[in-house]
Amino acid sequence: METAAVKAPDSRQRFIDVAVRLFSRNSFAGTSLQMIADELGVSKAAVYHHFHSREALLAAVIGPLVAQMRATIEEAEVQRTPHARAEHMLTGFIDIVVRNRELVPVLVFDSGARQLLQAMHGPEDFSDRQLALLAQADPGPMGHVKAKVAVAGLAGAIGLRENDLDDDVLRQQLLEVGRRILGLRTPRPR
Amino acid sequence: METAAVKAPDSRQRFIDVAVRLFSRNSFAGTSLQMIADELGVSKAAVYHHFHSREALLAAVIGPLVAQMRATIEEAEVQRTPHARAEHMLTGFIDIVVRNRELVPVLVFDSGARQLLQAMHGPEDFSDRQLALLAQADPGPMGHVKAKVAVAGLAGAIGLRENDLDDDVLRQQLLEVGRRILGLRTPRPR
Repeated sequence: METAAVKAPDSRQRFIDVAVRLFSRNSFAGTSLQMIADELGVSKAAVYHHFHSREALLAAVIGPLVAQMRATIEEAEVQRTPHARAEHMLTGFIDIVVRNRELVPVLVFDSGARQLLQAMHGPEDFSDRQLALLAQADPGPMGHVKAKVAVAGLAGAIGLRENDLDDDVLRQQLLEVGRRILGLRTPRPR
Repeated sequence: METAAVKAPDSRQRFIDVAVRLFSRNSFAGTSLQMIADELGVSKAAVYHHFHSREALLAAVIGPLVAQMRATIEEAEVQRTPHARAEHMLTGFIDIVVRNRELVPVLVFDSGARQLLQAMHGPEDFSDRQLALLAQADPGPMGHVKAKVAVAGLAGAIGLRENDLDDDVLRQQLLEVGRRILGLRTPRPR
């Protein structure tokens, strides 16, 4: 028989999933723990059992994504050529975007979430390293502009409309546009 | 002597300017009329004298921009060739972005502001017509993807970091990247 006790192990994840959806829909500042409780049909105390604040919930939401972003940046930074560094950062970022379609736009564009992210991880967040990597293929002043447009464009495009594309199709489309922006050659099929 | 009465004619504009800055910094949902009053060092009643709600303030803020966007779309739609339609939409949009660096990211990415915008102007907001115009240069499925990345990239890139570039320089840089994304030829200098 399914009881509250049986459900407990995954209820934390349910809160996280609903939080991402509401942050995306209403912005971080516009989402309260009460709204998350209402959306799940539970009491606010049930949310408090796992998360004592909206900030703690956002921290839990972004933890895995921050780890993946850090790993991608570190792997990209040790590639041997400028082209390989930019290509590795681009493909890794697109993978993160595709697998976190609702969350990435919140982290890139939601000012409340960005402020908290910087408070948690210091003012030197990942943006500078990510942009520097993406700009590798063009050392001139336009390299940095292209990198910024690529990050904003790839993160923001999926948020502009509901996007129910298959992961592989979306990944391939974003990769094609990302390479076009950055001036990266399409690798020959192996 | 400078008095409150002398200042009155432009105080409405001061509220609008401060509102844009706070919407950009804290998101629309995270900005209260009280915060706008505090930022200007006036009473909340002084804000209420001009705007009875955050929503009314946003409406005043975006009015001129919506008019400019509508005019750009209508002009672009009557251009004779697909290339000219895309090029006209791109240059017009970039001009709006450059002249409204703080406000455009709020309108494109802030979910609270977007919801209000749709409530005011109907679910058929400008996005669809804008995307269709930008996609003119590539009738295949990638045309729409490129258009979305262009809108998000051009609107979002300036918000990712403080950007103090001169208007003409920024316009030229965004135009170069925008044409690259959409596959538009750079016009020969006249």
